[in-house]
Amino acid sequence: MTHVAVMGAGNWGTAFAGIMADAGATVRMWSRRQEIADQINEGCNLEYLPDLRLPDMIRATTDPEQACADADIVVLAVPSQTLRTNLETWGSAMPADAPVISLMKGVELGTTKRMSEVIAEVGGVEQERIVIVSGPNLAPEIALHQPAASVVACADMATAEHVAAAVATRYFRPYTDTDVVGAEVCGATKNVIALAVGMAEGMGFGDNTKATIITRGLAETTRLGMALGAHPQTFLGLAGVGDLIATCMSPLSRNHSFGVRLGRGMTVDEATAQLRQTAEGVKSCQSILALGEHHEVELPIVEQVVAVVRDGLPVTEVGPKLMARDLKAEKQGTPLPN
Amino acid sequence: MTHVAVMGAGNWGTAFAGIMADAGATVRMWSRRQEIADQINEGCNLEYLPDLRLPDMIRATTDPEQACADADIVVLAVPSQTLRTNLETWGSAMPADAPVISLMKGVELGTTKRMSEVIAEVGGVEQERIVIVSGPNLAPEIALHQPAASVVACADMATAEHVAAAVATRYFRPYTDTDVVGAEVCGATKNVIALAVGMAEGMGFGDNTKATIITRGLAETTRLGMALGAHPQTFLGLAGVGDLIATCMSPLSRNHSFGVRLGRGMTVDEATAQLRQTAEGVKSCQSILALGEHHEVELPIVEQVVAVVRDGLPVTEVGPKLMARDLKAEKQGTPLPN
Repeated sequence: MTHVAVMGAGNWGTAFAGIMADAGATVRMWSRRQEIADQINEGCNLEYLPDLRLPDMIRATTDPEQACADADIVVLAVPSQTLRTNLETWGSAMPADAPVISLMKGVELGTTKRMSEVIAEVGGVEQERIVIVSGPNLAPEIALHQPAASVVACADMATAEHVAAAVATRYFRPYTDTDVVGAEVCGATKNVIALAVGMAEGMGFGDNTKATIITRGLAETTRLGMALGAHPQTFLGLAGVGDLIATCMSPLSRNHSFGVRLGRGMTVDEATAQLRQTAEGVKSCQSILALGEHHEVELPIVEQVVAVVRDGLPVTEVGPKLMARDLKAEKQGTPLPN
Repeated sequence: MTHVAVMGAGNWGTAFAGIMADAGATVRMWSRRQEIADQINEGCNLEYLPDLRLPDMIRATTDPEQACADADIVVLAVPSQTLRTNLETWGSAMPADAPVISLMKGVELGTTKRMSEVIAEVGGVEQERIVIVSGPNLAPEIALHQPAASVVACADMATAEHVAAAVATRYFRPYTDTDVVGAEVCGATKNVIALAVGMAEGMGFGDNTKATIITRGLAETTRLGMALGAHPQTFLGLAGVGDLIATCMSPLSRNHSFGVRLGRGMTVDEATAQLRQTAEGVKSCQSILALGEHHEVELPIVEQVVAVVRDGLPVTEVGPKLMARDLKAEKQGTPLPN
């Protein structure tokens, strides 16, 4: 029987533990906080995912070494900006031959490194063992066992296939792929695009506007990803457009909800106070813009989001700025072979 | 001053006439029905687009020859399945050198021809003059002047640029392109995918499921389009994913609303009766499936929609059928160069 360590007990880590248990694995979760571990051992992560009844084969601990012991697969599900510190603390406890799944979506502030780069650098994990799972996977819906699909990406296709088989259930359908960079760029950038879409919604705009921002956001995500060596087709897939749609359109998405509040005229501080947390896109928009500048890729929507959240540009000035750009060919700047 | 003939006075034809008037053209619309022409001449198409106050530079007539006379640009906006009969009746009235814009989205029943093929065949219009405008353009939102963007595609880039300049306004942003086939395949197939997404919504599924159907629907649209010679990148753009998102997610979309009713267990006849009209996807799903079979392209979602609307398959059987397919690589069947 497959034994899985899930490091992190937020809502996606918990939902993913549920998927793996339903796929037949025994799961040990690591939580930083004792009360969360206790709740999980009593069958429900009340704080992060109250809708999911956890089966007995999921146990939790606050001891990372105990969580990782004898794991056939390790799942990393900590907040992006804490990954480095976490791995420095307990990364050596991860078994040396187990595939390591990253559920994290972000770009490290300061270094502009993707999560897989931090895992390789600090965790000492080889590329052939690093697996990205990314797709339209809002945790509260996964908890209700609603049908969803996701990309399982690893540089080594055999590892991707092995992990895909270990996560497939009747409600969760994995598709294998080898484009780790593409999946990670999609995962990080979608949060920023969701902020922009939320702003438009908060200002009262409808589905044409939102679909247009998503589409042009996808175009700039594709430009950035290709500059980093991603496969263009990844952006057409579940980790690309799929996750972008779910994150940008769903009221369950934190980045979307945060953007809606900015669109209604709240400041970042006011929105943070009302939602009792900030959104990942607010943190990572600046590192994504820096990544674009470093690779000389134009990211007009990310740039406007940075202008709003960092420089206090009024949201009413964003739309006219984007609509007033020169008319151009749709495929300009995204050279894809025919 | 540019003079435009808009042939057809449904909601998109009317909204598009408004765009062209706002861009500075004089517009003459053709309506089959006298009462609609009269309403337009009084400043509002009450039946199809009551939210839009039409400017004086838009006039309407029931005489196609009068509408087409001296037009610099002709816009075709009749129902897809009536295009052939219409062009047989008055196609010769179109000026021999004017660009002809197609706003229609469908595949002709029986012949499986795209709209541009019917325009070329029956209207005698050369490829360099046929222009497709397609994107996330829900007419009621355009009528409110909400920001939107669209692809303007023509085999001849100079014509595309000429038309783009003639339709650009502060709320409508055109992007030029040369992929007519891709834009048309996207436009036709999205209606069928919107039926499938509506069905899922009607059955109570959330945004993960809907985003997954949209994404896999985009994959099969891409496969079909590439088999017909389209550029793969078109599917990433406004006519592709952009229009797909708007059509699949918006309650303003007729195909989406029709699918929701099927998902709640209504028959096609019951849904048609309740909405007082059928949806384009119900009509064209069979010709799109036939097109796929002819080109040996697998279209699993279109196939399930056909099974529901033609063969009466219960909607509850669609999900399990799609989820039970063999696990596979995401890019399988969509060979795109790296």
